[in-house]
Amino acid sequence: MRDHHGVSHAPQRLVASLLAEGGPMSGPDAFRRWWRTISTRAGAERRPLEELVGWHSTATGELKHDSGGFFSVEGLGVRSERGGPVEHWQQPIIHQPETGILGILVKEFDGVPYCLMQAKAEPGNRNGIQLSPTVQATRSNFSRVHGGAAVPYLDHFREPGARRVIVDVRQSEQGSWFYRKCNRNMVVEITGEVEVLDSFCWLSLGQLLRLLREEDLVNMDTRTVLSCLPLAAPGLHTLFPSRSDPYRAALVRSLSTDAPAPHPLAGVLSWITEARSTPRLRTRWEPLDELHGWHRADGRISHESGRFFDVIGVGVTAVGREVRQWTQPMIEPYGTGLIAFLTREADGVLQVLVRQRAEPGFLDVAELGPTVQCTPGNYDALPADARPALLDEVLRAAPDRIRYDVLLSEEGGRFFHALNRYVIVESDVDVPDDDPDFRWLTVHQLSALLAHSHYVNVQARTLLACLFSLSVS
Amino acid sequence: MRDHHGVSHAPQRLVASLLAEGGPMSGPDAFRRWWRTISTRAGAERRPLEELVGWHSTATGELKHDSGGFFSVEGLGVRSERGGPVEHWQQPIIHQPETGILGILVKEFDGVPYCLMQAKAEPGNRNGIQLSPTVQATRSNFSRVHGGAAVPYLDHFREPGARRVIVDVRQSEQGSWFYRKCNRNMVVEITGEVEVLDSFCWLSLGQLLRLLREEDLVNMDTRTVLSCLPLAAPGLHTLFPSRSDPYRAALVRSLSTDAPAPHPLAGVLSWITEARSTPRLRTRWEPLDELHGWHRADGRISHESGRFFDVIGVGVTAVGREVRQWTQPMIEPYGTGLIAFLTREADGVLQVLVRQRAEPGFLDVAELGPTVQCTPGNYDALPADARPALLDEVLRAAPDRIRYDVLLSEEGGRFFHALNRYVIVESDVDVPDDDPDFRWLTVHQLSALLAHSHYVNVQARTLLACLFSLSVS
Repeated sequence: MRDHHGVSHAPQRLVASLLAEGGPMSGPDAFRRWWRTISTRAGAERRPLEELVGWHSTATGELKHDSGGFFSVEGLGVRSERGGPVEHWQQPIIHQPETGILGILVKEFDGVPYCLMQAKAEPGNRNGIQLSPTVQATRSNFSRVHGGAAVPYLDHFREPGARRVIVDVRQSEQGSWFYRKCNRNMVVEITGEVEVLDSFCWLSLGQLLRLLREEDLVNMDTRTVLSCLPLAAPGLHTLFPSRSDPYRAALVRSLSTDAPAPHPLAGVLSWITEARSTPRLRTRWEPLDELHGWHRADGRISHESGRFFDVIGVGVTAVGREVRQWTQPMIEPYGTGLIAFLTREADGVLQVLVRQRAEPGFLDVAELGPTVQCTPGNYDALPADARPALLDEVLRAAPDRIRYDVLLSEEGGRFFHALNRYVIVESDVDVPDDDPDFRWLTVHQLSALLAHSHYVNVQARTLLACLFSLSVS
Repeated sequence: MRDHHGVSHAPQRLVASLLAEGGPMSGPDAFRRWWRTISTRAGAERRPLEELVGWHSTATGELKHDSGGFFSVEGLGVRSERGGPVEHWQQPIIHQPETGILGILVKEFDGVPYCLMQAKAEPGNRNGIQLSPTVQATRSNFSRVHGGAAVPYLDHFREPGARRVIVDVRQSEQGSWFYRKCNRNMVVEITGEVEVLDSFCWLSLGQLLRLLREEDLVNMDTRTVLSCLPLAAPGLHTLFPSRSDPYRAALVRSLSTDAPAPHPLAGVLSWITEARSTPRLRTRWEPLDELHGWHRADGRISHESGRFFDVIGVGVTAVGREVRQWTQPMIEPYGTGLIAFLTREADGVLQVLVRQRAEPGFLDVAELGPTVQCTPGNYDALPADARPALLDEVLRAAPDRIRYDVLLSEEGGRFFHALNRYVIVESDVDVPDDDPDFRWLTVHQLSALLAHSHYVNVQARTLLACLFSLSVS
């Protein structure tokens, strides 16, 4: 059993990293000073889709990489089997059937695990660099389809060896923009020497989660990996210092698997089974150049309503250890999204309100998403009953009930300036226990679901990581 | 919380039903006598595909029901991304995108839960009636696409109410014959009065599992539902009488979630993630009348090698409360399959050797299957190195190491005389702990995986039910 060692003490050791003082990057302002030394940059400028190099349009308009690998932009027809405001629509969607790796390397210093993080520039970042996992690689990266350099540290994630696997689970990504995209979320602990390359640094979980409270600093790939950490165990809350803030105390209590839940996990799974046994969205491929309402003009693909997103081209100049230039298509959404969890407290245990969502790119019918996930601007001109449920509960929340409110971007390798406002709000909204769409879950239940694929969507995973960040002072 | 009540004591109550004496169908030979009273029958005779009523062939040969519902027989092209003996093939496959319900209704008598089972005739059964779940219904049944009578007891599974949900999980079916078929496996306990209709009877879990040791009596749908029972809990083995048979003692010990396992469940999940992150089989629809090697002649579709299966037509006359006649396509496999678990004992705990299998109809790359799953006759004329791994370990097992060896049929609604020899064999075969394809699991680990969809294939689920049957004397 060289590989896949026990993970039994993982939750306790993760808490030690949450509460750690000191470590390789300690002292006031140490991270800031290091961050300012990073010279890696990726400048991106818009280019007409027709001028992308290494990309071509097929006879029916699909955008494909000349290698046949990487990703493509194709057309999808979607039919809702449950009625709803729009019963049938067509849209461009990114097709990237390969499973990549998002991996954080962990190593112990003075008995505490630290994460090797990377300052990484992505063309879609509006602010240049963000904090990314140790490895963020598509299969095309592995096989160097686009001729890049070898991915550092990749072998620790690909080759069984003297390592401890803490997280290893495939998770979906944006189901409205990606067709059945899956990335392998990994956290791997090693004991040997690790050379710290330029743009990499060791951070404790506590340091990392505190940085997640800053605008646009911790990238999406880091957030999804953090959300999969097994931060739940019996009595886990006893490892935290006692809290004067009752919200934080209830959150920490919710990490303990003996904390009571409003529904047993088997009941939550049954509710998911019920939803997935009924058809929700039927999809089929359609020619990209014949999608209803979408037009290719001025070097981009846009919807005639001026809503949703554009497919644009960008030219990228990345300056790091070497200078690299490339062009690629990206998705540029309109407007800033709002992604929110309502939370409540019962018997001293925090609960999170999740909502089932069917998105056209999901592999398995529906996943659990945030309480609210939408672009509010899309509803300004629409009647009140067209607004998503509980949107106004978030927008009108009293400031003292807002526990987290930060602008974060979606993945900068495919999405151009895809900014969302992530919010966590205390609420005493009344949702029936048997509501078909909503359920209150404890944090340890969300963690249990995240040991498996296809249960929790990427926006809810970011919110869970944000919630984790509220457990440290 | 009217619905989805706690299931916390389910494992203990299921053991009570396993060990029950007496109950509604008690006394020597009571079941036999009842079974002989069943007059339900379904006679099936072969009909040319061209003569099926209510079915048509499309311009490219696909067989579809005139209603557009029910199921169809279509063509699939399959490409293996890992090489292997056959890198590319085409085949007919059943396409049934609807999720049906396989449900067992449970009710307590004198403190012990009993299962409401049905003597059900299916056209593909070579022996007429078999013991089936309370409800076995496609969505087309619910909506009565083929004009049948209402499905008795269905409401208990479809409508939330005063019920306790013990099992509710979608599971895959034969991935070589079905494209992404999923059924909802349910066990629901109610407390109110239940009228026992003709052809239905109450059996304890112990009675049901003993019947599973008989040839072709307990049908596939019952077996898969039984395999999903949450028969695992800490210390569960202490509820069983102590055993003189060390094999049975080790099996019962393996139901206890504190029994040690060779790999932690997180390691097993990581091994599955690794497999599912690599492409295995790529599939795409192909015209049914252009499949390489397959020909439609004499009213059926066959492979030129005389192997695999035929698509045939049958005319059915079902005699029960009413007489019904219909015709439909079915799959008729060649040869009797062999489906086997090797088991071993370590520290007094039974372990089961599972193998990862990619089948073209699986939704998510690969599932865990039996140690051996094949049609041995297909390999008679082939060289030794073409034989499936461990096939001869099963075929040459000493009789005293064979713990279970029974002929059982696959589902008689779609498969005509699809007979498999199900075998459980004690073995001390040496399989490396980090073998890419095989893992030894405890029974409680298999049970934990069966709380979720897409992990364990239907043949391994039947074997798990067979293994459960060895826990009672």
